[in-house]
This record gives sequence, structure tokens and C-alpha cells, in this order.
Amino acid sequence: MSDLELKCVNTIRAVSADQPQAANSGHPGAPMGCAPMAFLLWTEFMNYSSKDAKWIARDRFVLSNGHACALQYTMLHLTGYKIGVEDLKKFRQLGSITPGHPESFLTDGVEVCTGPLGQGICNAVGMAIAERHLAATFNTDDHKIFDNFTYVICGDGCLQEGVSGEACSLAGHLGLGKMIVLYDDNDITIDGPTSHSFSEDVNKRYEAYGWHVQTVDDVSKDLGDLRAAIKAAQAETNKPSIIKIKTAIGYGSPSKQGSEKAHGAPLGAEDLAGAKKFFGLPEDKSFFVPEDVQKFFTKAAEKADKKRVEWDANFAKYTAANPEKAAELSRRIAHKMPDGVFDKLPSFTIGKDKDLASRKHSENCLNAMCPLLPEMVGGSADLTPSNNTRFKGASDFQKATPEGRYLRFGVREHGMAAVCNGIFAYGALRPFCATFLTFVGYCVGAIRLSALSKSGVIYIMTHDSIGLGEDGPTHQPIETMESLRCMPNIMVFRPADSNEMAAAYKVALSKSTTPSVICASRQTLKSLKLSTIEKASTGAYVAVEAKDPKLVLVATGSEVGICVEAAAKLTADGVPTQVVTMPCQELFLEQTQEYQKSVLPGNVPTLSVEAASPSGWHRFSHAQIAMNSFGASGPGGEVMAHFGFTTDNVVEKGKALTDFYKDGTVPDLSNRPVFETVGGH
Amino acid sequence: MSDLELKCVNTIRAVSADQPQAANSGHPGAPMGCAPMAFLLWTEFMNYSSKDAKWIARDRFVLSNGHACALQYTMLHLTGYKIGVEDLKKFRQLGSITPGHPESFLTDGVEVCTGPLGQGICNAVGMAIAERHLAATFNTDDHKIFDNFTYVICGDGCLQEGVSGEACSLAGHLGLGKMIVLYDDNDITIDGPTSHSFSEDVNKRYEAYGWHVQTVDDVSKDLGDLRAAIKAAQAETNKPSIIKIKTAIGYGSPSKQGSEKAHGAPLGAEDLAGAKKFFGLPEDKSFFVPEDVQKFFTKAAEKADKKRVEWDANFAKYTAANPEKAAELSRRIAHKMPDGVFDKLPSFTIGKDKDLASRKHSENCLNAMCPLLPEMVGGSADLTPSNNTRFKGASDFQKATPEGRYLRFGVREHGMAAVCNGIFAYGALRPFCATFLTFVGYCVGAIRLSALSKSGVIYIMTHDSIGLGEDGPTHQPIETMESLRCMPNIMVFRPADSNEMAAAYKVALSKSTTPSVICASRQTLKSLKLSTIEKASTGAYVAVEAKDPKLVLVATGSEVGICVEAAAKLTADGVPTQVVTMPCQELFLEQTQEYQKSVLPGNVPTLSVEAASPSGWHRFSHAQIAMNSFGASGPGGEVMAHFGFTTDNVVEKGKALTDFYKDGTVPDLSNRPVFETVGGH
Ligand SMILES: [Ca+2]
Ligand SMILES: [Ca+2]
Repeated sequence: MSDLELKCVNTIRAVSADQPQAANSGHPGAPMGCAPMAFLLWTEFMNYSSKDAKWIARDRFVLSNGHACALQYTMLHLTGYKIGVEDLKKFRQLGSITPGHPESFLTDGVEVCTGPLGQGICNAVGMAIAERHLAATFNTDDHKIFDNFTYVICGDGCLQEGVSGEACSLAGHLGLGKMIVLYDDNDITIDGPTSHSFSEDVNKRYEAYGWHVQTVDDVSKDLGDLRAAIKAAQAETNKPSIIKIKTAIGYGSPSKQGSEKAHGAPLGAEDLAGAKKFFGLPEDKSFFVPEDVQKFFTKAAEKADKKRVEWDANFAKYTAANPEKAAELSRRIAHKMPDGVFDKLPSFTIGKDKDLASRKHSENCLNAMCPLLPEMVGGSADLTPSNNTRFKGASDFQKATPEGRYLRFGVREHGMAAVCNGIFAYGALRPFCATFLTFVGYCVGAIRLSALSKSGVIYIMTHDSIGLGEDGPTHQPIETMESLRCMPNIMVFRPADSNEMAAAYKVALSKSTTPSVICASRQTLKSLKLSTIEKASTGAYVAVEAKDPKLVLVATGSEVGICVEAAAKLTADGVPTQVVTMPCQELFLEQTQEYQKSVLPGNVPTLSVEAASPSGWHRFSHAQIAMNSFGASGPGGEVMAHFGFTTDNVVEKGKALTDFYKDGTVPDLSNRPVFETVGGH
Repeated sequence: MSDLELKCVNTIRAVSADQPQAANSGHPGAPMGCAPMAFLLWTEFMNYSSKDAKWIARDRFVLSNGHACALQYTMLHLTGYKIGVEDLKKFRQLGSITPGHPESFLTDGVEVCTGPLGQGICNAVGMAIAERHLAATFNTDDHKIFDNFTYVICGDGCLQEGVSGEACSLAGHLGLGKMIVLYDDNDITIDGPTSHSFSEDVNKRYEAYGWHVQTVDDVSKDLGDLRAAIKAAQAETNKPSIIKIKTAIGYGSPSKQGSEKAHGAPLGAEDLAGAKKFFGLPEDKSFFVPEDVQKFFTKAAEKADKKRVEWDANFAKYTAANPEKAAELSRRIAHKMPDGVFDKLPSFTIGKDKDLASRKHSENCLNAMCPLLPEMVGGSADLTPSNNTRFKGASDFQKATPEGRYLRFGVREHGMAAVCNGIFAYGALRPFCATFLTFVGYCVGAIRLSALSKSGVIYIMTHDSIGLGEDGPTHQPIETMESLRCMPNIMVFRPADSNEMAAAYKVALSKSTTPSVICASRQTLKSLKLSTIEKASTGAYVAVEAKDPKLVLVATGSEVGICVEAAAKLTADGVPTQVVTMPCQELFLEQTQEYQKSVLPGNVPTLSVEAASPSGWHRFSHAQIAMNSFGASGPGGEVMAHFGFTTDNVVEKGKALTDFYKDGTVPDLSNRPVFETVGGH
């Protein structure tokens, strides 16, 4: 490489190592090894605009080894994004825009939250799917609106994670030719040499997935091989590409190069100075960018931005020629719902319509919304006939049919969720995906990132309780709903009937920065007389009214019908009983205290009934009919009865509860303060 | 194959299809396709004893595609295990020993709970690790005590799951030559043909993992190729083996063979009769086993049992020659702790010992226990220096050093947990494993199976809150502890100091049928004056006493120290404050109501303080200082302060809570009934 190129690469290394040194915390090693990759991407290959970071047609870049974020911040700083040197100096400090792992909502130019290994490369698969689908949808013979590459840098850790294997197998199947992965093969993980645990032939594995695979032996002295490899990767449009690049972690560090010691802690003043000396940079300066280096990057950023200017002009012509398409694209990018679209959601008429399983209600909502909301793309982890997710008129998204909106994820739950995060991050799409509720346990690592990243992914999780029956305890969720309810920024719906399901879709689709989990039953549910979409949208409401109730039953989903029957018996037996249906705790807790008290008075004996863990219910109820063990295999109705989810048992426990408080000492659960909470993300 | 062999195979098919037909639910297709594999394993290859199903040296068999369990039940029935024809007729019925997916604790001869795809094959990796380690530990030059194979049948789904990729890459690295996988390559998944989503070259991928790979094109007419392949797999002792076997799902079904329609529903009477006709079996008989067929299997089972008889004789000689080793093995198989072993746990002396991070306390416990409990084997998912799990004197378990007890799992959390379930299922070992607490989200699918299967795996999860600091919200657990607390049969510990950590290890090691999650801090914690191992073993106790308290603070882990300081201020300010430390909710809820009330009176204003989701705390407290959002990147102390985890904020909110109830109407949280729960697993 030229002297100036080397100086640029070394500056990236030094500034990236300066950040953890200043923070006294962080990861210098990977940035120092990967600097040549970043240099080439930002100066020769990527189309981006630091003036318009959200330019829809930009090439996407994902730092899958998110701990290397000092590298990304350095690149964004050098190429004119809104990261000043003061921001670099505040690396890993509270309130900074340079946190310890990249956070998409904090920092311009960061596409997704990475850090949990393996996720970023899966997000990139989703982005490449989105690009291909949107290109098929919006491009015309005259105008290529969507035509970008998705680049990834990742390390050994990302490729050891199973989630990346899932998504990369899918990427190979789909032939996502515009995805290019630069694999930082540095032979080091936190525990030490990769030979401790990772001796597989990664290239061969990716060939098995159907990828285009190349190896670059050295990037420390010459960039020619890597440059040629990236060009070849761009040229291979039928297959995703991975380039295995041999690097040295902590390259340039006198004492830590090639060692796990360079991974997760600052180099230390002495070693960092030694590295700068080796780089030919002033040893006593921090965050130092030589003038010619900055000039070089500024020129590169200007060159990249020209592409955006050209695209803007092209898009103006496209808009003139295809005004409806352009308007539709703008609508989708803004996640704006068309006026009146939710009027088309199915609503139920008692006595006229048939009771159905709520997974059928979900299907009806998909059938109603998907034709009107072409931004909805999604599918199932190989449970399509059980999850009821293949909406009417759907066609598969496959290599030869990129216009299709139905995704065949295969038996890959974690990859599915991570891919959906990437589809959402790309923009202009609202992904949904599905499996059995219990298999949230396979993909909650990625669901958590939907919530943290404010990705409005919709999770359709059917077979939501022991009521699924014969498949038995491995398939029957107990802890799952509570494990999602206790997660920030995610809504968990468990609709009891058609109207509640419609409300779930309405709210989920309305909130583009909050993911939703829609839990649905395998078995048929009885519709509620008093349900409406509007009431269900408050999160909880009275399903059976009682004057001066002596008992309140609160339930969700399939247990609401049982409570309705029990309330009739109880009221007939002299215990006036009110039934509350609570399709969404999160929405209910957003309502005013007055509304909450009008639904759940708190000082009336309250029994919650949910065929799941009681944890979380003590907030709303004095006693619980719940699951304190795993379920059992048997016909669904019998299993429900065995565990006490019957009208008779609700009647019995309801009476026991009112008896328990017959002396009038019922503790008022609503008489509790809620302390304001500190804002976080 | 001979006529009789074919008749045997067809009988397996018919009896396996009879079960879902009788249940009107279940999966006939995979058993019909896989019958030839099962036939060969049980009649020619496996060492097993239906008279002594738990014979420690038996070959292990794992049905990773657990939905095919009718096949396993048929084999166990035919070879004399405790499964009668009545049991087969009760397939998928409540209370039967033939549930919808195999449950190890219900059915003799079932090694592990399978059904969630991908888990079983990982369990098998753990079993093969266990066998190799125990062989290295117990075998002598004269006596081979451990020397078994581990066989797996799995389908496409298991191999699509990322978790299997993780464990199989590790298996290849470790060269687990006595693991043999029969891959049912039937080109079908639930959604339809595998070509929808799965077009990778599986054989090549397994070669990349370092496996020995073979292909068998047909098993429907001839068993010779499969027989030869299994023999070759046995002979290859340096590498795990996978044999890709082309089959037809629903083989023999006139209308459903080769279609996803044979997968998840009974064939129907007509089609089943047609299949029986094709098999040459009486069309009108169900669960029919021809006499010569039963004789054949009985003979095979007797032959297999002879190996067990020989082994018993050999083991008697071994016991005579090595009485201590034999006694030690028996102790380990029974999961009996040596007398007094827990006396060696570290206990803390205030004023003498140094305050430490609780991950250091955990390390001290491992250092104390591992030398005394050689059944403890484990490691970390590439976070050894952060999780502090490499106990003193540990050596790595590697291909060349199978006597090592430290496992280098690589960056493979889900595989790690599933492998540990397999190690536990093998017997005579107590596996532990570790990652950051937030990455429970990557492996909870397998943790759930620890709980369901009653596998006493110990999970050491460090960096247990926002207090970890700079790594930021992707690494800071919020929902994680609650998501585990609401799961049945698992204990979640969050020790506040050394004595509480010792109690966690004591309880966790004592309970071999309940997994434990031990949460530990990155940062240093202050030790408690009143802590003892005994008190901490009750799950919660008074850490700071107050006479006639006006306020109770209840906290866990790193927040207890904050509450201790706050209580001193509050008491000085005229609000006598009691502090309760609650290292384990599950243990506390097992105590008597009296004890519970003595610790948490319920009618005194109670404020819980935990840097995690408030969900679950409403049971114990009137108000919460908790996390209602994700965390933030910054120095740990600053992040804790930002979110309100400071002495001052606890004092302020404590006063606000007592103010809130100054009119005396504090609801008594202990005045609530707990309804007895129906027993499940
Ligand atoms: Ca690495
Ligand atoms: Ca299959």
C-alpha cells in the first residue's frame, strides 16, 4: 500500500486504541487488526453519505463484532458523520454517543445494535433480503432505486454462534449475492487461541452453505489482495460472499499483538505509545489525525456522497415518472399507516360469526392487513400450517421470486428473529415472524434486541399454553409470557377473542418502535359479548359486569371464557363477580390510575386465572390460579382440567378467596405508589 | 434384507403408526421412515439392558427428532422395557408413560427429553464427552468400565437449528469418535419440501466440522449399506460420525409417503390399512406384533443383555481390585455429596477478609469444591477470565487430555447448556457452565430443558446487572432474573456476599434434580455483618435488624449493600428500617408462612430494590426501585447512580413510601391465600 494509505490505516488503529485508553475500558485489539478492512470499505467501496446518514439507498455496514466499535466510531468521525473528537474522548461514558457497543438509536451511521455475538451478521442477512425485495418491488426498467451492498465485519465469535449458522445457511439458500462478509480471522478469542475450541474449516462450512468463499492471507502490508477479493465478491451476484482475512489482533502493539490480552482491555500508556511509534505517529498525541490523513478521508467521503447526490437526482426523475410508487415508498419509510386501514380489521359479531382458535383470528387479521400493507413481510420457522401465517395471496420470497413476501425461515427460530431485526433496520418494511410460543426460548436473544433497538417486529407465537395438549411439556409454555412481560419496550398480547386479536394487530402495527408478541391459542376460544377493538386497545377492560362485585376474576386468552362461565355460576350462587380480560398488561399500565381502578378496583378480592406462571400476577390479584410446574401430554381439554383451568375450580377458588377475606381485611392492591422511573432506552 | 428382517421393520412401522392413529394425534411419518435405523441399532449394534435400563455402561440412544417418539416407544416395547401394549395404546394420553415427546423421567429407556429440535444431538455430544472423561477417570489397564457409543437419530430440523451447529462443531474439535448420528434425510419439513429453505450441503458442513461423513442412499429394501456404514462409524474412533440416510417420510403410506402430510397427523384409518397391506401385515389389526417378529426382538434383547451381564462380572472384579474407585463411582452415580464437604466452603469474616466481586466469591467456591468433588466438570462460553470459572488446578478437557475437567465451550452458549444437559444425563457428573447473565437469552431453550428434565446443571452467570458498566445495554440484563424465576424447577441465586455465595453453591450442589442459576456481580460488593451460610440457605433473612420497623427494604446482590447504608440513614432520621436480603426467592417461598412473615411482615411498608425488572416484586413489596428500561453504557457506579441505585435515592423513596402510608392504610401483602397447586413435573 502507499505510504499515505498506510498512514491512514495506522491512524485508524491509533485513534481506535486511544478510545479504550481514555475510557480505561474497552476493546482495542479487533479495531487494530480490522483497520485495513474498514479503510478500504469507507474509502473505496461503500456508498454512503455522512450528510444524509439515513439515505435509503446507502450501502449498509454492520459491525457484527460490536465490541470493536471504537473502529466504527473512528471511521464515522473521519468521514464526517456527527461524531466529533469530543465524542471519541467520551467513549463508553454515560450520556455519550460512543457507547461500549454500537447502539443504532444513539449514533448516526450505526445501523443496528451489535455486541451480542452473531446477531449483526444475521441482521445483515435481513438487510440483504430487504434490499432484494424492495428492488423487486420499487425498481423500474428505467430507474434502479434499490441497489446496495450489505457489508459485514465479524470475528470468530460471530461465526461460532449458532444463530449465524442459521441465518447464513438461509442466505446461501436465498443466494443473497449482495451481502459481503469480511471475516477477521485472528486466531484469538477471549479464552485464548481459537485452537482451544474452534478448529473447524470455516471456509468449507460456508461453501457448504452455498456461499462464495475467498481467503486473504495478509492485509498488514498490502491491500491489493483484499481489494481484489472485495471486487470479486461484488461481481459474484448469485451467492453471498465471505472473505476470510488473516489478521493480528492488536496489530502494532509491542507486547500484546496476537494475544488475547489485546482483546478486552486498554493497551496501557506504555504499550500504546510503543504502537504509535511503530505506526510512525507521534507517541505523545492522543486522537491525533494527521492533516493529509484527514484530507484523504474527507475526499473519500465527498466522493461517496456524490453517489447520493446522483441518486437523489435519479429519484426525482423516478418520482416524476412513478408518483404513486414514490409516495408509497415515502409512506413506508416513515412507517405511516394508510388512513383507515385499521377499519378493515375483522371484528366479530356474537351469534353470527363462528368461534375460532385465536391463531385463526390472527390469520384473519393477516389476511385483512397484508393486502393493504405491502410493507408486511414475514413467515414462520417451519410451522406455517400451525402458526397460520401464510396470508391469502402470499407468494414465497425465494431466489427467483424476490417480489414474494412470505419467508420460509426453516427450523431456525433465532436466525429468524435476528433476520427480522435486519429487515426492519433496513427500512420501509414491517417484518413478522412466527413459531410456537415456547420456542421464544430459542430466539429471545434476538427478541431482546428488537426491544432494545426499537424494531417494530411482530412476533406471532401460537400454541400459547398447556391447552395445546398432546405435544406435552416440551412444547407447553409456562414461563414464556412473563419472561417477555418483564422485558422493557415490548408488548405482549394474549387476545381472548377476535376483537382482542384485531386490537393486538392494530396496536402492534401502530407502534413502529416497539416490537410485539402476539400469543395465540391452538384451541377454539369463546368470543366475548362485551369485547370491542377499542376497549381491547386499553389493555384490559370489563368483560362481565357486576354490580357491587364481591369478587373480580382477571384472565387472559383462553382462560377468559372459563372465567365468564364461572362468573355466571358465582353470581347465581350469591357472589356477584366481575370478569376482567387483560389482553395486554403493558397497555393497561399506560392507562390513567382512574381507568385502572375502574377496571381492577384493587380492594375487591381478585383472583387471576392464567395457565402460566403466577409470577407477575401478584401486582393485580390477591390469589392466582396458575401453573407452578411444567405441563403434561394429553388432550388439551384434559390437561387444562388436570391443572385446574375449569369453571368448577374457578368457582371453588373464587369462593375460597371471598371466604378468606370474609372479615373484611382485603388488602387494597391499588393502594400502592409507583415511583417515577429514570429515563433509559 | 431377509423376509423376517423386513417383517420386523414393517412391524415397527405399523405399530408406530398405530399409536398416533389411536391417539388421533401425533407423528407417524418419521417413525415409518426411520424404522430400518432403529431396527439395526436395537438388534445388531446397541448394548443395552431392558432389565437394567440405567446400566451405566449402556450405549446411549437419543431420539433428537423427539416427535418420532412412537418409534422409540415401539422399540422399547419390542425389546422388553417397561412399556406394555396398553401403554402404546395410551400414546399422548394424560398420565401415560408414552407422552407426545419423550420425557426421560417418565419412561424407562428414554435418556433425555427431546422435542425442541436440535437439543437431542447436543445432549449426545455431552454424553460422548462424559463417556470419554469417565473412561479416562475410571478405566484401568485391566478393566474398561466405560466404553460405550452414543447413537442419535435426527432429522432435517435438528440440523437446521443453530444449537446443533454449535455442539457439533465442538464435537468435531474434541474428536468424539464414539458418537454416531443417523441423519434421516427425508427432504421434508412441516412447511413442505426442504427445498423451501434448506439447500445447503449438510455432509460438507459436517466434514468442515471435522466429522466422519457417510451417505446411504436407500434403506427401504436393503440394510447392508447402513450396516456397513454403522460399522465404519464405529471403527472411526478419532472423529464423530454422521450417516446421511435417504428415507421416505411415511414410508408405506399409500397416499402420504414422501409428503409433509405424513409428518404431524395420524394417517387415517384407510391409509393406515393400506400401509399395513403394503407391509404384508393384517390390515384389521392394531398394535399387532407377529410371533416370529417378537421372538426375533426378544432374542436380540437377550443378546444385548448378555453384554450387561458380562460387564457386571467385570465390574465385580474391578471393584475387588479398585474398591475406592468403585465406591467413588457409586457415590457419583447416586449424586451423593461426601460427608462434610460443604464445611470446606469459604465463609467470610468481617474485618478480616477483603470485600470482593461476587464472581470472585463464586471462584472461591469453585476452588474449594472442585478438588473435593471430582464430578464437577465445566467451563465457560469463551468468557473464562470474566466468569472466573477456571478453578485452581483445572486442566482442559481436550482430545488428547480427556481426564481434564475444564471445558472450552467456545462462543456457543446454547450448545454449551445443551451439552451440559447431556453430561448430566449420562450420570456420575455435575456439570457447570458460564456466560454473562444477559446471554441467558441465547441459551434459555436448553436451560428450560435442564429444569424440565430435572438436570442439576449449575449455571454461573456473571455481570448480573447494569452495574457491569461500560459494556452497555446489550450486555446489561434487565429481564433475565425474573424470566428464570418464573420458570418451574430452577433456582435463581443472587448472592450479596461471600456467605450467600457459599450457600448458593451448597444448595445447588445438594439438589441434583434442580438446576441452579448463580448470578454474580462484576463489581465489588460489601459483605454483610449478619450473613451466614445457614441463614442464606433459607432464601431470605434479616440483614439489618430494626425494632418496630416503620420500613422494610428488601434487596438482592449488589443492591443489599446500598440498602444497608440507606437503612442506617433512615433509622438515624427517625424511620427505623429493617433490611432483608433475598438471595433466592424460590428457597424463601419453600419456608413456613411463619418464617416468611418473620422476615417480611407484609404489613410494614416494604420497598424492594433490585437493578432489574420490577415484575415479580409486587408479591413482596409495596413499591419498587427497579429498572423500567434498558441500561446504559458508562462506568458502573455512574450507571447505577443514574438509574437510582444509590443510598440517597433509597432513603428518599423509603421516606416517600412511609409518607404514602402515613394514614395507616398499608395493605398487608402477606394477608393473601396461596392455593394448593396441582402436581406436575
Ligand atoms: Ca477473534
Ligand atoms: Ca425431515
